[in-house]
Amino acid sequence: MPLIVQKYGGTSVASLEHIRRVAERVAKTYDQGNDVIVVLSAMAGVTDGLINMARKITETPEKQELDVLLATGEQTTAALLAMTLKAMNYPAKSLLGFQAEVLTDRAFGNARIMDIGASRIKDLVARRTIVVVAGFQGADADGNITTLGRGGSDTSAVAIAFAVKADMCEIYTDVDGIYTADPGICKKARKLYTVSYDEMLETASLGAKVLQIRSVEFAKKYNVPVHVRSSFSEEEGTMLVNEATNMEQPVVMGVTCNKNEARITLKNVPDQPGIASKIFSPVAEAGIVVDMIIQNTRSEGLTDLTFTVPKISFKDAMEIEKKVAAEIKAEDVFGDENIAKISVTGVGMKSHSGVAATMFSTLAAVNINILMISTSEIRISCVVEENYAELAVRVLHTAFGLDKEEHAPV
Amino acid sequence: MPLIVQKYGGTSVASLEHIRRVAERVAKTYDQGNDVIVVLSAMAGVTDGLINMARKITETPEKQELDVLLATGEQTTAALLAMTLKAMNYPAKSLLGFQAEVLTDRAFGNARIMDIGASRIKDLVARRTIVVVAGFQGADADGNITTLGRGGSDTSAVAIAFAVKADMCEIYTDVDGIYTADPGICKKARKLYTVSYDEMLETASLGAKVLQIRSVEFAKKYNVPVHVRSSFSEEEGTMLVNEATNMEQPVVMGVTCNKNEARITLKNVPDQPGIASKIFSPVAEAGIVVDMIIQNTRSEGLTDLTFTVPKISFKDAMEIEKKVAAEIKAEDVFGDENIAKISVTGVGMKSHSGVAATMFSTLAAVNINILMISTSEIRISCVVEENYAELAVRVLHTAFGLDKEEHAPV
Repeated sequence: MPLIVQKYGGTSVASLEHIRRVAERVAKTYDQGNDVIVVLSAMAGVTDGLINMARKITETPEKQELDVLLATGEQTTAALLAMTLKAMNYPAKSLLGFQAEVLTDRAFGNARIMDIGASRIKDLVARRTIVVVAGFQGADADGNITTLGRGGSDTSAVAIAFAVKADMCEIYTDVDGIYTADPGICKKARKLYTVSYDEMLETASLGAKVLQIRSVEFAKKYNVPVHVRSSFSEEEGTMLVNEATNMEQPVVMGVTCNKNEARITLKNVPDQPGIASKIFSPVAEAGIVVDMIIQNTRSEGLTDLTFTVPKISFKDAMEIEKKVAAEIKAEDVFGDENIAKISVTGVGMKSHSGVAATMFSTLAAVNINILMISTSEIRISCVVEENYAELAVRVLHTAFGLDKEEHAPV
Repeated sequence: MPLIVQKYGGTSVASLEHIRRVAERVAKTYDQGNDVIVVLSAMAGVTDGLINMARKITETPEKQELDVLLATGEQTTAALLAMTLKAMNYPAKSLLGFQAEVLTDRAFGNARIMDIGASRIKDLVARRTIVVVAGFQGADADGNITTLGRGGSDTSAVAIAFAVKADMCEIYTDVDGIYTADPGICKKARKLYTVSYDEMLETASLGAKVLQIRSVEFAKKYNVPVHVRSSFSEEEGTMLVNEATNMEQPVVMGVTCNKNEARITLKNVPDQPGIASKIFSPVAEAGIVVDMIIQNTRSEGLTDLTFTVPKISFKDAMEIEKKVAAEIKAEDVFGDENIAKISVTGVGMKSHSGVAATMFSTLAAVNINILMISTSEIRISCVVEENYAELAVRVLHTAFGLDKEEHAPV
């Protein structure tokens, strides 16, 4: 009998009425002759509400206790869904993280899964019971409750799918799949019916917030079949696949846009060994994640150094760097919040030259100035002025042959 | 070092501000050189809110899943208090029921504690950590979450106090102790500084809802020292003691009044073997708890049978008995919701005659008609018309020498 893992996100379980609809979809899948394991997030907004409550106690609530608090969110939805299924006369049972034997490390608030025993899940499934697992949570070796970080239920689902050798891991969310670009920006964007794990990794980290990036890493590592689809429709969504299965991969799979970063430039930094460490260590210590870094050597042993940080960390990072600049005798520090990072991604790029050239010339043709460039094996990103972000997405979408008119869905 | 278990009820942890005050009291106890284990209820109203949510799904939510849902209430307060203590720089750690090794039977919704391992509690206490245990919850032998029924946190606290051999189990509530009568009814009521377990059992079951009755049974069985006191004041409350320690026990310890029952009478029932079973089995099957039962044999093999049920079950019980009456050929069924049960309780009654006589004559002197009578070794209860309840409490309070003016506090 096929075994399906279905994961429903916070917007899909936002109310009792939503939960009833999820129960109907689960029941339908079960009635079609599948074994079903459901993995749930907390109701939309609940996790943030709990964090805000904890912050009223102290600005920095202890992480271990915060995890105990946050774990109630998924416990609630798991109990409610199991209860709903039972009321519909389906055999169902909720399991919390520790009951599903989701063993994690001790990194409270952002724990990583070490192992999933899943013996109880398997026993229940063998008895044709629908198992409803509270996502996002696990327990460390001492039985302390841990949580997996924002979006962690995705990782719960993929890891459980691997542990039970599920035939499919369906991730239900409020979008109906992965698109070649944000349809809100680019009307010609079309849905992709397959995307490779690697492409998903590059786009997820760029702000296409459909899946927690760690869940994609996990799916790639263990080759877990993942299907991203909408809980509000019956349409097929997007399958995550190994690139090898996709013979006629187009060069570029999509164009993404990230407006959540700001850039900081240190001007005329004395170019000495160890200088980068002096600049970036204090930022890292403040818990600020630096994304792109560019260094241009200029004349007379001086260099300009530019990097990007999340917009919410911009002010903190600027303050830190002003102190650093004084210390290392850099001439000046300036920042810019009005930037956007435009990226084209595609595993096909590996074997095609000219993608970068096409990107640069396409942007130049509409007079968009490129402020920073960074590349990976399957991605090229350009930072541009924020005002030009949408235009950049649209012209690149056309230039790389992604527009709807030109490529009918498979 | 003395080891104190402190249990705080829902009104004591009703908000973050309340929790902060609890933290301060816990910290003070700790600073005075005690080891402290805290047992918490859910915030006032939260458990009822969760039950109402579940009832929106189905009138009869599955009990096992309801327990998973309800357990989030105590999990929340335990995490919040531990977090608050940590923010105040005290070593603290929350433990859920299963982590505290509270092993129960499988009676979901009303589970009984089988054993408390408490090894983690003891380890933490040995390291001078304040342990915050989520009350009301445990786990069965398979690791399923269970709850102990309404007021179950009291039983959690007493059972844990026994398991760790605590020097004292303090039950903090919104009243400051046990009184000789409800001070709202009887202005001359005075606080009792000691009450025996047996007296507490009789009064708790009569509606003095200070402690879950099972917690008192447990405390009596294992001789756990319990101190009932207010979380809103520093005053001494009421100690539960073994009667033997109380040399000069007065005859009657208090007068209680219960208005939550209704009575049902079956008139002229043919008096045959097996008739009581025909009358009471259908009521029991409907989950209705019958309290007092009185049967008077009348002439010609006919009998009148009167019993009381909780007011909320009155209509259901009446419907059932109308059918039964037709079946067993009883002449009539009538009911009365406007009754009150007045009880006098005291271990001293065992060795004193005349308590019943005093009670009847005192009520007769103010023209209160006694509708039903029932007695135990240390309690006499009379059902009277509801309108006379308060008057009955006051005259009996005076008659048994309980008035404030006559007995100064110990």
